[in-house]
Amino acid sequence: MGEDDFVVKGFKANAVAAGIKKGGGLDLALIFSEKEASAAGVFTSNKVKAAPVILSREHVRRGRARAIVANAGNANACTGRDGYLAARRTAETAAVELGLETEEILVASTGVIGAPLNAELIAGAMPALVEGLSPGGLGKAVEAIMTTDSFPKMARFEGIAGGQPFRISGIAKGAGMIMPDMATMLSFALTDLAIDEGLLKKALGAAVNKTFNRITVDGDTSTNDVVFILANGAAGNGTLKAADFDSFEKGLTRVLEELAVMVVKDGEGATKVVTIHIKGASSNDDAGRAARAVANSTLVKTAFYGQDPNWGRIMAALGRSGIEMIEDRISIWVDGVKIVDQGIGAGILAEKEATERMKGPEFGVTVDLGLGVCEDRILTCDLTHEYVSINAHYRT
Amino acid sequence: MGEDDFVVKGFKANAVAAGIKKGGGLDLALIFSEKEASAAGVFTSNKVKAAPVILSREHVRRGRARAIVANAGNANACTGRDGYLAARRTAETAAVELGLETEEILVASTGVIGAPLNAELIAGAMPALVEGLSPGGLGKAVEAIMTTDSFPKMARFEGIAGGQPFRISGIAKGAGMIMPDMATMLSFALTDLAIDEGLLKKALGAAVNKTFNRITVDGDTSTNDVVFILANGAAGNGTLKAADFDSFEKGLTRVLEELAVMVVKDGEGATKVVTIHIKGASSNDDAGRAARAVANSTLVKTAFYGQDPNWGRIMAALGRSGIEMIEDRISIWVDGVKIVDQGIGAGILAEKEATERMKGPEFGVTVDLGLGVCEDRILTCDLTHEYVSINAHYRT
Repeated sequence: MGEDDFVVKGFKANAVAAGIKKGGGLDLALIFSEKEASAAGVFTSNKVKAAPVILSREHVRRGRARAIVANAGNANACTGRDGYLAARRTAETAAVELGLETEEILVASTGVIGAPLNAELIAGAMPALVEGLSPGGLGKAVEAIMTTDSFPKMARFEGIAGGQPFRISGIAKGAGMIMPDMATMLSFALTDLAIDEGLLKKALGAAVNKTFNRITVDGDTSTNDVVFILANGAAGNGTLKAADFDSFEKGLTRVLEELAVMVVKDGEGATKVVTIHIKGASSNDDAGRAARAVANSTLVKTAFYGQDPNWGRIMAALGRSGIEMIEDRISIWVDGVKIVDQGIGAGILAEKEATERMKGPEFGVTVDLGLGVCEDRILTCDLTHEYVSINAHYRT
Repeated sequence: MGEDDFVVKGFKANAVAAGIKKGGGLDLALIFSEKEASAAGVFTSNKVKAAPVILSREHVRRGRARAIVANAGNANACTGRDGYLAARRTAETAAVELGLETEEILVASTGVIGAPLNAELIAGAMPALVEGLSPGGLGKAVEAIMTTDSFPKMARFEGIAGGQPFRISGIAKGAGMIMPDMATMLSFALTDLAIDEGLLKKALGAAVNKTFNRITVDGDTSTNDVVFILANGAAGNGTLKAADFDSFEKGLTRVLEELAVMVVKDGEGATKVVTIHIKGASSNDDAGRAARAVANSTLVKTAFYGQDPNWGRIMAALGRSGIEMIEDRISIWVDGVKIVDQGIGAGILAEKEATERMKGPEFGVTVDLGLGVCEDRILTCDLTHEYVSINAHYRT
């Protein structure tokens, strides 16, 4: 898809190199809505919240916003009062340059934790950032918020509401420190649909819960995770009908789903994307806990890397997850291949077949606990040498 | 220390190659008490329990035992009814050969999960195993239970009780799938002290809780973890006095502590042993959760590997651990070097100094939450390329 495919009516974007990223390159992004927009956000559940998270939560509470400023290279987390002031200075600078109120600006940061953010670099870059705003600028914006990402993540959806076509475009960054709940690092979605902030918040919450809250790379939840959505009504769809809301929520879910899958695919050092599907659980809570225990086990994840259907490690992860379980009711499949039947290994031939399936870049592990009707799904990736290389040396 | 240093009066041990380990080598160990001994055991908390765990729990309930049979190369876990029968056949064979009751035998297994254990290999090797029993055989026994271990783990303690010298010797194996609670893989302790089974159980529980339940390598709890202790009274100390019990409990704790440290040092691929010390927590539960969250974070563990005092990752792990915390009350040290002061980084010089400390094979990370008086300690290791190599290819 080309740049134009992600254009949403009434939105412009741009990015510049402000000197925040150590190695240079684009590191400051701006997304701007020409008219006031409904706004909603979902934030990290980590108790350590970065300064931009704290500030943006205050701003988004109004339900209206006009712009998002995001930087990479510095997370502005664990930076205390000075960090909060730097986040506010960022919003103020953007507001002045765009002729808006400070409260209309949402901010987000990603990068190293604990280093002071020099807001003067951002202030200095702001005129050029605003000057270069263009409808096709979203591609530059996503590039600017990449850190350990190896490719930019964009997705879109087109629908009809009130007889008018509308579009949702979303971008995301994130490759490590990915864990439900709130696993996103940064993701921004734009739509030209007219939708009030209450419904927008509802749709965003539901979509995030089905997508970004269902992925894990390393079990670590970041201090900076945010998903923002702005809806500026430029599609001219009038007052939203119930059916149109459903269509919008589905569309948004699909966009965030695509982005979430991209984040796992780009999981630091990952070579395989694996869907962990738990069914037959006696409660939803058990299904979720079981899925997370398997999806985050370093032993399971290294076995994925080795293309080894080492189901004993899956059983061991289930056994320590604290869920209700009866060992000899459990069956396990890799894609369609049953490797455990009622608690017992299905034999060497089945495992050989499963190994074949695991050679591909994507496969699924299904666990039937055989106890109830509850289920859950988590997307995870393998744990590789490259993951260790990236994370042992990321800061240095 | 030589072989004789681990001899405990009235005990013999031996090991043979029974053909269970794929590559050959010693894989079947026997520890034998010449007279009846008090016995106690602590078992894995994993809901998936290996057959030998199930059988030995039944046997140890009597509080008396005469022998331990342990094999490596096959965990006899997730093996269903046949696995249970294989574990019982192992105990029966040993009992016949030693002229004992089946219930007097404790069994333990370690190795691959889910593969059927061929008890006939064990039966066939039993005559030679018993034939070769000798007072100095504990060194062969520990060698036989090694799997991914890179060195044998032995420790001992000598004390006086009732005017008589007594000794405690302990062995352990374990390098991966190590996580509280019950993190040991296999550990066996022998003492010639006369102590009844109730006190023995009490001392073992207390010692395990202070040692093996305070280490983690990869956050995975095995299906096979056991610690057994046999006390045969050959020291001739008579009825145990309260002061002697304290001395014994301290001695046992010291032996298990030494073994636990060896297990972490030998953590799969580990190059560094790190003590995570949480203090200032508002509850013991919070202290434990915080310590485990930091000790098991793959991002923290890769930073240890990279000798990077990346305290932001420590803050992030604390923040997602679910404990009560106030960011700007938290201070963090690497050994004696303060790298975070009241939630804020202490600067580049402090980090450089911390990096120096992290170059050694052992260091400590202390977190003061600044809220209360509760504390906890967990021993962990770094996450390395070698860990991934070992676990991606262990079975193949």
